[in-house]
Amino acid sequence: MSKPTPLSGFPELLPAQRVVEQQVTDSLRRTFELHGFAGLETRAVEPMDQLLRKGETSKEVYVLSRLQADGDAGGAAGEAADGGADSGMGLHFDLTVPFARYVLENAGKLEFPFRRYQIQKAWRGERPQEGRFREFTQADIDVVMRDELPFHFDVEVARVMAEALSTLPLPPMRLRVNNRKLIEGFYRGVGAPDPAAVIPIVDKLDKLSTQAVARLLVEDGGLTEEQAKQCLALAEIEATDTSFVDQVRALGIRDELLDTGIEELAAVVDGCASVNGARFAVVASLSLARGLDYYTGTVFEIYMDGYESLRSVGGGGRYDALASDGRTTYPGVGMSFGISRTLVPLINRGVLSGNRSVPSAVLVALATEQSREVANHVAQRLRGRGIPTEVAASALKFGKQIRNAERRGIPFVWFPGEGGNHQVKDIRSGEQVDADADVWAPPTADLRPQVTSKEQDQ
Amino acid sequence: MSKPTPLSGFPELLPAQRVVEQQVTDSLRRTFELHGFAGLETRAVEPMDQLLRKGETSKEVYVLSRLQADGDAGGAAGEAADGGADSGMGLHFDLTVPFARYVLENAGKLEFPFRRYQIQKAWRGERPQEGRFREFTQADIDVVMRDELPFHFDVEVARVMAEALSTLPLPPMRLRVNNRKLIEGFYRGVGAPDPAAVIPIVDKLDKLSTQAVARLLVEDGGLTEEQAKQCLALAEIEATDTSFVDQVRALGIRDELLDTGIEELAAVVDGCASVNGARFAVVASLSLARGLDYYTGTVFEIYMDGYESLRSVGGGGRYDALASDGRTTYPGVGMSFGISRTLVPLINRGVLSGNRSVPSAVLVALATEQSREVANHVAQRLRGRGIPTEVAASALKFGKQIRNAERRGIPFVWFPGEGGNHQVKDIRSGEQVDADADVWAPPTADLRPQVTSKEQDQ
Repeated sequence: MSKPTPLSGFPELLPAQRVVEQQVTDSLRRTFELHGFAGLETRAVEPMDQLLRKGETSKEVYVLSRLQADGDAGGAAGEAADGGADSGMGLHFDLTVPFARYVLENAGKLEFPFRRYQIQKAWRGERPQEGRFREFTQADIDVVMRDELPFHFDVEVARVMAEALSTLPLPPMRLRVNNRKLIEGFYRGVGAPDPAAVIPIVDKLDKLSTQAVARLLVEDGGLTEEQAKQCLALAEIEATDTSFVDQVRALGIRDELLDTGIEELAAVVDGCASVNGARFAVVASLSLARGLDYYTGTVFEIYMDGYESLRSVGGGGRYDALASDGRTTYPGVGMSFGISRTLVPLINRGVLSGNRSVPSAVLVALATEQSREVANHVAQRLRGRGIPTEVAASALKFGKQIRNAERRGIPFVWFPGEGGNHQVKDIRSGEQVDADADVWAPPTADLRPQVTSKEQDQ
Repeated sequence: MSKPTPLSGFPELLPAQRVVEQQVTDSLRRTFELHGFAGLETRAVEPMDQLLRKGETSKEVYVLSRLQADGDAGGAAGEAADGGADSGMGLHFDLTVPFARYVLENAGKLEFPFRRYQIQKAWRGERPQEGRFREFTQADIDVVMRDELPFHFDVEVARVMAEALSTLPLPPMRLRVNNRKLIEGFYRGVGAPDPAAVIPIVDKLDKLSTQAVARLLVEDGGLTEEQAKQCLALAEIEATDTSFVDQVRALGIRDELLDTGIEELAAVVDGCASVNGARFAVVASLSLARGLDYYTGTVFEIYMDGYESLRSVGGGGRYDALASDGRTTYPGVGMSFGISRTLVPLINRGVLSGNRSVPSAVLVALATEQSREVANHVAQRLRGRGIPTEVAASALKFGKQIRNAERRGIPFVWFPGEGGNHQVKDIRSGEQVDADADVWAPPTADLRPQVTSKEQDQ
């Protein structure tokens, strides 16, 4: 077999790069669990009718078929009989559709409010480009309730994701927040003939000029030029605190839905105040609309400073009907963070990397092949105290064994000596000291591979 | 949408059940990393020609196709141009094929010996039955080298997997080990006209009677009745220590390859001696053959006592050519453990479960909705010290809030009191004590959900 080549859109990581993804995933999971979110996994496949419920065939679903779908040796009848389970299945393109289905399927066995996080792969057959992959990992959190979901969960979801993201070794990020009640109420107060129709037009502000959007508001939105101007004035408001409230009030529009929206947005921004800082900001962004019509209140989008070309690296919001079986409705609020979308470009540009390609903190050197048992014993004692350790593959000259450790980024080489006179060498400093495998430990920072960030080192 | 029904062969877990899978996965990962194995992930898809290389179409590969493969609005030309990347892709059916491909693709960037573990899903369109799923999670470890892989890695892989499995909360398990050099050398020494052809016949011993296999050895294997008897005598040998060596010798067969095989198998059994115990045994099983012809030395199979109907729940061995690009060969030795195959039947039978459905160790009760901020503050202080905490969804009567905690299995309810007079209640014992959110901590066993095992409690 000749050397295989990578598949475009299906990123894979080298071992030291994978350290970044593992530690980011572990860190997200830790924060989510501290807040009581249960870690769920759903199957990779869903029935096609589920995947296409919203008519969004543009999601580019990958359809599955069995190679031997129509009959094979042995049990052809049985296979045909349950072939229906396979026909019309596709890979999920996000984690929301499978989660909504899971909630409906298991509603009788779940406790509500149901907080869950889900860190899994999803697949979309779209054209690969930076930050857009055909296979990618996402981290989603959602809170779902039966019938009614109190508003305070919007604040909770914002704070949990903000806290989770702010502890990651990433470039500065912004969690932009808006509220559809606020903007829809404002557009109604302005006198828009169809307030909901204004939303997707304002949403184009990140692609079109203000003038172009103003023209569309008049031509397609049915607004007067003065009304369009007011809508655009609202969209200009941005604040990392509740000062946006006075700015909105200053525009002089009065509407009940607007009031509710302002109150809700202020509560979210306020609730995230403790997370705001130099490397992470929660921003009330009144231009944010998210064209998607299933959001009914709070909407979120996550951006990474300096990587605007990736556009948003996550988002979400409140949907008053995440799922419904006709009798019971399950409202939810949640957010999704694109792990692959964020990390793969940073890793490929060399901004983030792991400082070693193996978990091992220690390599036990081998004087001779006959001493392997002694070396294994040392390694077992270190492992027993939680220190990842490997034993040299062969009894090369010590200089070569040290260089082998160095190439993997292993910080310490252990030399088992005659009569229990062991020594351990920090191969970065060259310092070598006597050591006892039942006592010695590396500095905590050396215990696991570390993620190093070029940007942050500057 | 009406209530969805489960898809046969695609198991999903409820939150408390998922605790079992998460903790087993975490525990496996911890052991693998302590031994220096790097955690890798490969993409879910491989080119079909890779998946079918061994002509094993019986693997029931799931083939992918794009819903909109032939042209869509916008960018049809571009889509068509890179459509080739999608054509002929399928979901991997194990983790070995993708790993072999990954090694070849990245050989220039990897350090050898390359130890990796991989815990991922795989898919096979076979008929679902207990322990056999269409989507399942596996945990694989392998060590791969360039050109030559010293034998001691066989011992290492056996020991690492034995250690990893022996620390899981599972029914007693056996790691059965044999060596193809041993059996092939023995069959040659016996005078079999085609020693390799004897292996798949002996492998039928777990399905057919000894008499039936004896007949096949004569009819298909070309052995005399006396030779067949000797081969079956070898297959009867089983030992948890190196006593098997004398038993093999007692059969009086002499062969050089047999000698090598005996030496290797003895080394593996010896190397695992420290893991052997009441709940985990490493057994030299001279009947074990593994029909697969790419194994060239050590072979492994994992069995779970009392669950023989599942047959093996894992296995592996040494393959002298895991991968090859024509110029360089990459030999490997590895083992795979079927996480879904093992856990799902145990979970479904109620043998294993998590003792709560949420990570939360504490629920902070709410006296009134107005006190939510105080409750949030308490929760944050507990979380800051690593204690998973959630705040009550609403200010119901305390009795109801306690019952809500109980239903989730949360062991402690926190009552923020006036003027900082906080109390915490262990709702299992009913004991309620004064507590400070900056000092109090639950017993370590209550910090995370625990896996409870019915069998082990007996």
